[in-house]
Amino acid sequence: MHVQTVIEAGWVMPMKPKGVVLPQHSVLINEGKIVSVVPSAETEGIEADELIRLPDHIVLPGFVNAHTHAPMHLLRGMGADLPLMDWLQTKIWPAEGKLMSPEFCYEGSLIAGAEMLESGITCASDHYFFSEDVARGLTEAGLKCSVSGIVIGFPSAMAKTTDEYINYAENLFERFKNNPKVRVTVGPHAPYTVDDSALIKVRELAQKHNAYIHMHVDETQSEIEGSLKQYGIRPIERLHQLGLLSEQFISVHTVKADDKELELLAKTGASVVHCPCSNLKLASGFSPIAKMMRMGINVAMGTDGVASNDKVDILGETRLAAMLGKAVCEDTTQMKVGDMLYAATLAGAKALGWDDRIGSIEKGKDADLIAVDLGNIDALPVFDPASQLLYSAGREDITHVWVDGTIVVKKQQSNGLRPLSREKAQKITKTWQNKI
Amino acid sequence: MHVQTVIEAGWVMPMKPKGVVLPQHSVLINEGKIVSVVPSAETEGIEADELIRLPDHIVLPGFVNAHTHAPMHLLRGMGADLPLMDWLQTKIWPAEGKLMSPEFCYEGSLIAGAEMLESGITCASDHYFFSEDVARGLTEAGLKCSVSGIVIGFPSAMAKTTDEYINYAENLFERFKNNPKVRVTVGPHAPYTVDDSALIKVRELAQKHNAYIHMHVDETQSEIEGSLKQYGIRPIERLHQLGLLSEQFISVHTVKADDKELELLAKTGASVVHCPCSNLKLASGFSPIAKMMRMGINVAMGTDGVASNDKVDILGETRLAAMLGKAVCEDTTQMKVGDMLYAATLAGAKALGWDDRIGSIEKGKDADLIAVDLGNIDALPVFDPASQLLYSAGREDITHVWVDGTIVVKKQQSNGLRPLSREKAQKITKTWQNKI
Repeated sequence: MHVQTVIEAGWVMPMKPKGVVLPQHSVLINEGKIVSVVPSAETEGIEADELIRLPDHIVLPGFVNAHTHAPMHLLRGMGADLPLMDWLQTKIWPAEGKLMSPEFCYEGSLIAGAEMLESGITCASDHYFFSEDVARGLTEAGLKCSVSGIVIGFPSAMAKTTDEYINYAENLFERFKNNPKVRVTVGPHAPYTVDDSALIKVRELAQKHNAYIHMHVDETQSEIEGSLKQYGIRPIERLHQLGLLSEQFISVHTVKADDKELELLAKTGASVVHCPCSNLKLASGFSPIAKMMRMGINVAMGTDGVASNDKVDILGETRLAAMLGKAVCEDTTQMKVGDMLYAATLAGAKALGWDDRIGSIEKGKDADLIAVDLGNIDALPVFDPASQLLYSAGREDITHVWVDGTIVVKKQQSNGLRPLSREKAQKITKTWQNKI
Repeated sequence: MHVQTVIEAGWVMPMKPKGVVLPQHSVLINEGKIVSVVPSAETEGIEADELIRLPDHIVLPGFVNAHTHAPMHLLRGMGADLPLMDWLQTKIWPAEGKLMSPEFCYEGSLIAGAEMLESGITCASDHYFFSEDVARGLTEAGLKCSVSGIVIGFPSAMAKTTDEYINYAENLFERFKNNPKVRVTVGPHAPYTVDDSALIKVRELAQKHNAYIHMHVDETQSEIEGSLKQYGIRPIERLHQLGLLSEQFISVHTVKADDKELELLAKTGASVVHCPCSNLKLASGFSPIAKMMRMGINVAMGTDGVASNDKVDILGETRLAAMLGKAVCEDTTQMKVGDMLYAATLAGAKALGWDDRIGSIEKGKDADLIAVDLGNIDALPVFDPASQLLYSAGREDITHVWVDGTIVVKKQQSNGLRPLSREKAQKITKTWQNKI
């Protein structure tokens, strides 16, 4: 048997089955696809053009960032600590008003995409204006992406009316229909910015193209109160009545959903994208994520845009989600390591409808992989590689990123001045680990 | 004028006054001490043995980790997701029982100290057994430290009775009285593990040596309920009645303190050490930090031990504290960037009684400094350097660490494969920044 690449890893975490870690396994790659995962002891007889030995690393699928606003990278860090409306009205909206253009969206997405790849994210779902240019920036950086044909009840530099927004979205489907790196979603902004007639057009457009709908839902308490006042029902009930909820509905944030709304999401098979950093920093609140997971809702991870985060770091976001979720439900046994790493990968792919191609290390899937170094002082000792990956390692330990079997990020070992060598730290921790 | 070292930085954040960022300033260092901070345009005529130019960096005092259990580094990652008592009874306590020794505490602290320095922490306050060996490990790694003479109502490998614990602590004061890198605190474990008679001995020992008292207080609801049942009052009221509270009292966690207890802390001038990662991961709860800060309580940052965190990353901990604090008090204007970076530095030094020597960049203080690279793709663009430092940068961007004017960490630029060069990312972000 001949393959192009063999990655011989300390551990492989395929994400299917959920939570499983395979020690001393190798991933075989040919023509950009995963051929198989085999014990490294059984690779004799396999010829490879390239053998990559990573004995201290864990290899897993690239992270999926299921909600972001990539162009906002160019506005990161403006107006920290302002009240929300002041921040929007005096900083973000005026800057967007001045800069909004295809070129702004392209260059912002190029920057964002590069940071995402360095953080181990190989697929992102964006929600912003000029999505054709967002897709150009993200794919030029090296990612796969879903981009949204946004629909919002306000005029922008991109479109003035619902029909113009819908028309832009319609063109997106045509533009990317033959691009294997880009998929298109319909992106109604939020229940409070899109009226019923526009939401019906959204549903029709999505049905026509068998596309996913990507929407901010139940982000804040005032959104809920506004919906009750204007429509007499809560936002998710309204979306359900309008026929938007299905397995192809991506409900972002969903911080304030009540049990009845969660039941609707569970029943229809919709996914939730959890963005804990943004929810905390904007003081939106504490999402009932453990409860959603117990109800069987598919929960994915998103960074939101860096204007309210300010990182695109799915590993860090997932670590926070795990810790925060335990505190919110007052139960340390919830938000288990394996479930959280699944949320950061295969659940994200599933939420976006990319799970036919990515999200797990399975035969035939795209070889979109990352390798995380667990041999550095910050992740030692390794009693439990998945736990060290989630809780101890950081995005700086993601040393290798492959997309379609091609390496796109490779961070070199630093030979600077350190208080203790890697070798000495490994030796000390191993000695004590062996005594337990 | 002649000095040994000049660090010419993009920005200097001295922490006194709180929140101030000085662009294009230089820090002058001689014989391990800070000589002055001057505009870089005014350094002509100053001769230096060494000029370090860091135009993309922000220079600030080293972080203070005001609460940790360094030797537990050797147990990191054991028993993730277990219920708290199972985790302690089946994993942590048996491992500690097997390994606990001076050598375990020395080697664990050496590892922990190295990771702390790489994370920009130059002073740590430890709370564990065999503190003489903890101090040996931390100082050998290169840190300054406070170490605790622990007092706990259970026998251990170190001591069997209160008097043996007190005796060990007494010897610590003698052992380190002439060591400029080590200070000694008295460390009663927690209100529920130390009885009144032992606490009175703690107070007497601290008074005799003019030492700080370092104690876990009000960490969980069950601790509060236990105190009410056993003593009829809440833990902080009890500590106050026993005469322990003062400006030299370090109250760690303090998640469940009620308003009356917070008033006692404020009135007596005690400090609180906030450990948000640990509080979330152990599902202890949500500390009312914004309220404490508004009441004028000195709030410092701590990582806790890695058995419940699992990082020693004060920058990350402070970022979480800021975001979490905004969500808890439902106000985005609280937990301001300048206040949070102060909590991570000078407030920590003040909490530990090290503020005569460290915690701010002031003439005569020790040159314990860090430089953080804000020119990487993960921190661009720089509208507000302090906000980028707290929210966008990570510990991986801490490239230089000095203790007593000597460089102890220097991370090399990596020349690996990246999607976008640093130069191109800087050029793109600068272009758009200039248009606003």
